Amino acid sequence: MSNIFHVIGNLEQSLHAAVALTQTKVSPPTLTSAIEYAVFPGGARVRPQLCLSVSHACGNDDPQLSMRVATAIELLHCASLAHDDLPCFDNAATRRGMPSLHARFGERIAILTGDALIILAFQYLAQSDTRYLDRLTLLIQTLTTSVGSPYGLIAGQAWESESDISLKQYHHAKTGALFVAASVAGAQAAGFDPTPWRVVGEHLGSAYQIADDIRDVIGNADDLGKPISQDQKHQRPNAVHSTQLTDAIDCFNTLIIKTVESIPNCSHQQFLKELVLQQADRLIPKAAI
Amino acid sequence: MSNIFHVIGNLEQSLHAAVALTQTKVSPPTLTSAIEYAVFPGGARVRPQLCLSVSHACGNDDPQLSMRVATAIELLHCASLAHDDLPCFDNAATRRGMPSLHARFGERIAILTGDALIILAFQYLAQSDTRYLDRLTLLIQTLTTSVGSPYGLIAGQAWESESDISLKQYHHAKTGALFVAASVAGAQAAGFDPTPWRVVGEHLGSAYQIADDIRDVIGNADDLGKPISQDQKHQRPNAVHSTQLTDAIDCFNTLIIKTVESIPNCSHQQFLKELVLQQADRLIPKAAI
Repeated sequence: MSNIFHVIGNLEQSLHAAVALTQTKVSPPTLTSAIEYAVFPGGARVRPQLCLSVSHACGNDDPQLSMRVATAIELLHCASLAHDDLPCFDNAATRRGMPSLHARFGERIAILTGDALIILAFQYLAQSDTRYLDRLTLLIQTLTTSVGSPYGLIAGQAWESESDISLKQYHHAKTGALFVAASVAGAQAAGFDPTPWRVVGEHLGSAYQIADDIRDVIGNADDLGKPISQDQKHQRPNAVHSTQLTDAIDCFNTLIIKTVESIPNCSHQQFLKELVLQQADRLIPKAAI
Repeated sequence: MSNIFHVIGNLEQSLHAAVALTQTKVSPPTLTSAIEYAVFPGGARVRPQLCLSVSHACGNDDPQLSMRVATAIELLHCASLAHDDLPCFDNAATRRGMPSLHARFGERIAILTGDALIILAFQYLAQSDTRYLDRLTLLIQTLTTSVGSPYGLIAGQAWESESDISLKQYHHAKTGALFVAASVAGAQAAGFDPTPWRVVGEHLGSAYQIADDIRDVIGNADDLGKPISQDQKHQRPNAVHSTQLTDAIDCFNTLIIKTVESIPNCSHQQFLKELVLQQADRLIPKAAI
C-alpha cells in the first residue's frame, strides 16, 4: 500500500524534471517563467495519479516509463488549461486561485506556453530510457488520440464552436478522453492489455465531468480557485442545466460505483477500489450532500 | 535521379493520409475543414523536401519512416504558421494568397488547428510500422527539440516578447531549428549518424532566414501571398534593417555556398548540391538580383 503513495509522491519530482528541460541559460525568460507557473503548484493531479495507480495495479515493471507517461499526461492537461482560459475561449481571469496564465503573462505567452507544454510532454516521454520501445510507441499513440481530433481534448474544445452538438460526444472528447488515456496508458506502460482498463477511465471521466458541472453550478469560486457559472455564461452544455441537481448527484454516484465495479482483477484491485471511493468524496461540494 | 522526385511526389499523398486521420464521421466539422485548409495547397514544402533529400542521400532504407517524419515536419511548420498569424502575434490577414486561418475560421479554431497539427505530427509518426523503433524515438527527440523551448520554434516566437534579444539566437530558434531538424531527421530515418548533416541544415536555415528578411523588405505581397514589411511593423529584427541590401544578398550567397560545401560525402552528394543551388535561385526576388 505504501508503495503507490511513494510512487505518486515522486510525480512532483518528475514534473520538475520535465519542466527543467525548458530551463537553460539560453531560454527566453518570460516563457520559461510561464511554463513553470502553468505546472506548479498544480491542481489535484487526478489524471497522472490514475495512470500511476493502474500501472501499480498491473505490476509496474517499468516504473520510469509509467512515471514519464503520467507526467506527460499532466503536462498535456496543463497545456489544455492554458489555452482554454484564453480570452477567445473561457476568458477566465483566475485558475487555481491565482491569475490565469494570460492574465499574468499576456495572451502571446499563454498560447506559446500551451504549445510548449504539448511538445514537452512528448519530449519527456521520448527521452525515457525504457527498453520497451514498443510500449513507448503505443503510449504516444494513446496520448495523441486522447488529445487530438476527432477523439480528444482539442476536438472537444472545437465542438464548442458548433451549433449542433452531442452532449455525450462533447464530454467524452473534452474530459473523458484524457481519463481513458490515463487508465489505458497505465496498463500499457506495464505491458498489459489495456482493453479492460478503458472502461475504468470512461466511467471515472464521466463522473468527473458531472462533478465539474455540479461544482460550476453550486460551487464557491474561492474554494475552487476559478470562476463559477462558466457553462451558463458561455452557453455550454451542463448536466445540471438539463436535469435536477439531485439527479446529477445520483448519476455521479452511479458512475463511481460503475468505476469501482469495472476495475479488472489484478494484484491491487481492492486498494484501487478504495482509492477511487476516497477521491470521489473530494469531488462534490459539501453543500450538495 | 528520378527516384528522389518520385519520393518527393509522394509527399502530398502522405500529407493527405495524415490529415485524413482527423476526418471521420464524428469529427467537429469546422476544425476539420480548418486543418485541411492549413495544410493544402501549402507552400514550397522546403523542409520536408530537405528531409527526404537527405534520407535519399543516405540510402533511405526505410522509406515509410523518412516519409512520415518529413510529413510530421511539414505539419509542425503549418502549425507554427497557424499560431504566428494570430491577432496577438503577426495579425496577418493573408497567407499563401488566401485569407489566413483566423481570418477565415476565427481565432478559436485557428488556435485549435495549430494544437491539432502538433498532435497529428506525432500521431502520424508514431503510427509508422517501422521495425527501427530506436530510430523512431530519436526522431521524436529531434522534432520536439526543434519545436519546443529553449532551442526550437516556440522559443524563437517567445523571444519576440523580450526586450533584450540576440539576433542569432532568435533566428536560430525561429527558423534554423526546423531546417536542422529536417536534415538531422533525414539522416536518422535512414539509420545514419546525423552529426555531419546538422551543419547543412544550419547553413540552409540561415540562408532561408536572410532570404525571408529580403523578401519582407523588397518583395511583393501578391507574389508572396502574404503581407510585406511585417518585421518593421512588429519591430522584429531583420538582417536588411541592420545592413545594406547588397550585403544581405552577399551573405545569402555565401551561406548557400557554405551549405553546398558542407554536404557530407554520400552516394548522391552531387545531386543534393545541385538541388540546393536550384532551390536557392527561387528564394530571392528577381528585383534584387
